[in-house]
Amino acid sequence: EAIGLMEELHPADIAEIYDELSIDEAKFLYLLLDGDTAADVLAELEEDDRDRFVKALPAEVVAKKFIDKMDSDDAADVIGGLSDEKQEEILSHIEDIEQAGDIVDLLHYDEDTAGGLMAKELVIVNENWTVLTCLRELSRQAEDIDEIYYVYVVDDDGILKGTLSLKKMILSPTSAKIINIYTPDVMSVHTDEEDEEVAHIMEKYDLVAIPVVDSIGRLMGRITIDDVVDVIRDEAEKDYQMASGLAEDVEASDSIWIQTRARLPWLVIGLIGGIFAAMVIHKYEDAIGQIPAMAIFIPLITAMAGNVGVQSSAIIVQGIANNSLGFESVFSRIMRELGGAVINGLTCSALLFVCNYFYSGEFTLTIAVSVALFSVIIFAAIAGTLIPLMLNKAKIDPALATGPFITTLNDIVGIFIYFGISVYFFNLL
Amino acid sequence: EAIGLMEELHPADIAEIYDELSIDEAKFLYLLLDGDTAADVLAELEEDDRDRFVKALPAEVVAKKFIDKMDSDDAADVIGGLSDEKQEEILSHIEDIEQAGDIVDLLHYDEDTAGGLMAKELVIVNENWTVLTCLRELSRQAEDIDEIYYVYVVDDDGILKGTLSLKKMILSPTSAKIINIYTPDVMSVHTDEEDEEVAHIMEKYDLVAIPVVDSIGRLMGRITIDDVVDVIRDEAEKDYQMASGLAEDVEASDSIWIQTRARLPWLVIGLIGGIFAAMVIHKYEDAIGQIPAMAIFIPLITAMAGNVGVQSSAIIVQGIANNSLGFESVFSRIMRELGGAVINGLTCSALLFVCNYFYSGEFTLTIAVSVALFSVIIFAAIAGTLIPLMLNKAKIDPALATGPFITTLNDIVGIFIYFGISVYFFNLL
Ligand SMILES: [Mg+2]
Ligand SMILES: [Mg+2]
Ligand SMILES: [Mg+2]
Ligand SMILES: [Mg+2]
Ligand SMILES: [Mg+2]
Ligand SMILES: [Mg+2]
Ligand SMILES: [Mg+2]
Ligand SMILES: [Mg+2]
Ligand SMILES: [Mg+2]
Ligand SMILES: [Mg+2]
Ligand SMILES: [Mg+2]
Ligand SMILES: [Mg+2]
Ligand SMILES: [Mg+2]
Repeated sequence: EAIGLMEELHPADIAEIYDELSIDEAKFLYLLLDGDTAADVLAELEEDDRDRFVKALPAEVVAKKFIDKMDSDDAADVIGGLSDEKQEEILSHIEDIEQAGDIVDLLHYDEDTAGGLMAKELVIVNENWTVLTCLRELSRQAEDIDEIYYVYVVDDDGILKGTLSLKKMILSPTSAKIINIYTPDVMSVHTDEEDEEVAHIMEKYDLVAIPVVDSIGRLMGRITIDDVVDVIRDEAEKDYQMASGLAEDVEASDSIWIQTRARLPWLVIGLIGGIFAAMVIHKYEDAIGQIPAMAIFIPLITAMAGNVGVQSSAIIVQGIANNSLGFESVFSRIMRELGGAVINGLTCSALLFVCNYFYSGEFTLTIAVSVALFSVIIFAAIAGTLIPLMLNKAKIDPALATGPFITTLNDIVGIFIYFGISVYFFNLL
Repeated sequence: EAIGLMEELHPADIAEIYDELSIDEAKFLYLLLDGDTAADVLAELEEDDRDRFVKALPAEVVAKKFIDKMDSDDAADVIGGLSDEKQEEILSHIEDIEQAGDIVDLLHYDEDTAGGLMAKELVIVNENWTVLTCLRELSRQAEDIDEIYYVYVVDDDGILKGTLSLKKMILSPTSAKIINIYTPDVMSVHTDEEDEEVAHIMEKYDLVAIPVVDSIGRLMGRITIDDVVDVIRDEAEKDYQMASGLAEDVEASDSIWIQTRARLPWLVIGLIGGIFAAMVIHKYEDAIGQIPAMAIFIPLITAMAGNVGVQSSAIIVQGIANNSLGFESVFSRIMRELGGAVINGLTCSALLFVCNYFYSGEFTLTIAVSVALFSVIIFAAIAGTLIPLMLNKAKIDPALATGPFITTLNDIVGIFIYFGISVYFFNLL
């Protein structure tokens, strides 16, 4: 009965149920699903669940029940996670030799590139054909393809020339020559293009599919928007996770152990930063002994340094992620950030000054804290802007500069600035 | 010449150039673009630039040069940002009465719903037609539509029955009846469905377009993936921005003034939190006077409280955003979080204990700080998990609980815990 119910569901829904099951339950239920559904569900499973599951099954079952029936891109993703021996064993059991060849081709590409995202299933027509030949070829080629978004037009050497929309094909006379009706100037990407760049292109030009070409312009495959949506989601999540001090890929449903592995390293970095901050304050222990009130504003200074730094770095990291930084120079960007920091710094310092003065009536500490706050805000804004820009120039992920890293740095420098200024104002040097 | 160059470019590229121009330069160049390109560029401009630009042009120009030639969804977005009078004036100048009607229909929907995302351009066929009738209708209806992803099948009452792929239509005999070849069980959304939910559905089921229906199932429009990609991007950015203490929608290229407006409110909230933290420490000023070393670990405690809280809340907020929280109860989620916090807390406290003990040899403060750190980590983890879950239950955006809000709360409570424990260990009560 469970099977009857499940067959009614969409593979993506079945996959969600499977993600909650143990490996044995999953194995048992899986073997009862019919072939096409089973293959679709496998493609939708989360990567680690899928890998564990595939490793637990014999190579022949994986090949015949799944790989043979999957789209080439999903098949390559499934096989790509396995050892070389297991890969070869599975490939040897694939009956459809064209499918096996496609998968072998796709396994060459790095998974973070256009080649790693593309599928081999696509409809190709020759520019010299007529619409009638096309329609015949279409029914032959289209058998294995779920959705045709574009028909790609190539010349005799397989070089991508353009696209032909199904709409155009339907609306043209059957005797028309492709070369006269296709759309040239098709947007394409190189197999080595980075996946995030592919996403930017498809997002910007509102494409549902994009052809992938090799160095001499031969059509190698196509990337569809559904896989690119996953890239966009992953990219945004990765930046957010780094800003929140999480090593990549942790999910709410992961086990305590996986979560700890993702969180503890950042916490230890924060701890080391805290120890450095403690060493800075230790230097001023005598000063604090004389004027204990100096300790009162430590959290205010570190919190503001952290908040400003996180804001500045988030603006830069997000600008890089959505390609909106434009052509502004680093210098003018820093100047603009500085302008904002002066406004924010003056406002916050003035507010704090008024609060402090009316609450304590104490002048020296009040002025010292406000001056320190202003200086710390300026420093945090500049560091928060410069560091991600520099990392990006050095081809290091700028998102590293957000979150715990920037707050820790700003804590330490902020305290240094605060005590330096306070000690100066109190003449405790 | 500039115009000649620009006509070669894709509208999305021209829009990027326009976003960098002043309003007068933009106006000048704009009026030289040919009609279709001009309309496409307008649809691609950033919202605030577009609004300012449209406001600066006479209603008749806007209507004839842009609105008449745009897709209905983009046209409604452009008009929706204007005053009621200007809207009516523009609508009265639209020559294509069908287009004007579509826009008026679309203006009724909230922009955050499926109705606000959908376009009226779609190809509809009746289930009782033959393929031949369909093909004829298609060439009539498809004139205004860039891409046909699906042909929607309705009954005589306009109720959505299913879809027909172009592929199927091409491969079927022209005498076949639609009712015998269409795919029933089409996934659809209601006009009132939230945009983020539409995105989740299209993402999960890998759709490039989804039909929108009203309460009795009549087909009202369709949503295409390119607009949903923008929703996904915006949603992810919004959560990231809130976590970073930025009011929505600030960009690296925005003016100092806009950036300050987005940043200052959060900074002031952080400042107020810092003042509260100061008041807590103020209560312990005498204790600090006696044992100044107590001040040394304030930044370490607040930093760790902040880091743990941000991690916990980010995991929950992201789980909510990508629909991966699953069916786990709040209680078991808290228990798992608690388990992780105990591991993280014990590790960090032990590390700190070893460092402190070997560095200072001072036992009381060393043990007090480690106990305080452990307690603070436990508190921060629970608060970071519970608060976003509760906000979500109360239909408030859980992302509010991340960033400055959670770090500020954790700072205050963390200091309270730290001084409470230290004073107890030093018998300073
Ligand atoms: Mg990548
Ligand atoms: Mg791949
Ligand atoms: Mg787009
Ligand atoms: Mg668009
Ligand atoms: Mg795919
Ligand atoms: Mg990134
Ligand atoms: Mg902090
Ligand atoms: Mg929304
Ligand atoms: Mg709209
Ligand atoms: Mg998907
Ligand atoms: Mg998929
Ligand atoms: Mg649209
Ligand atoms: Mg959200």
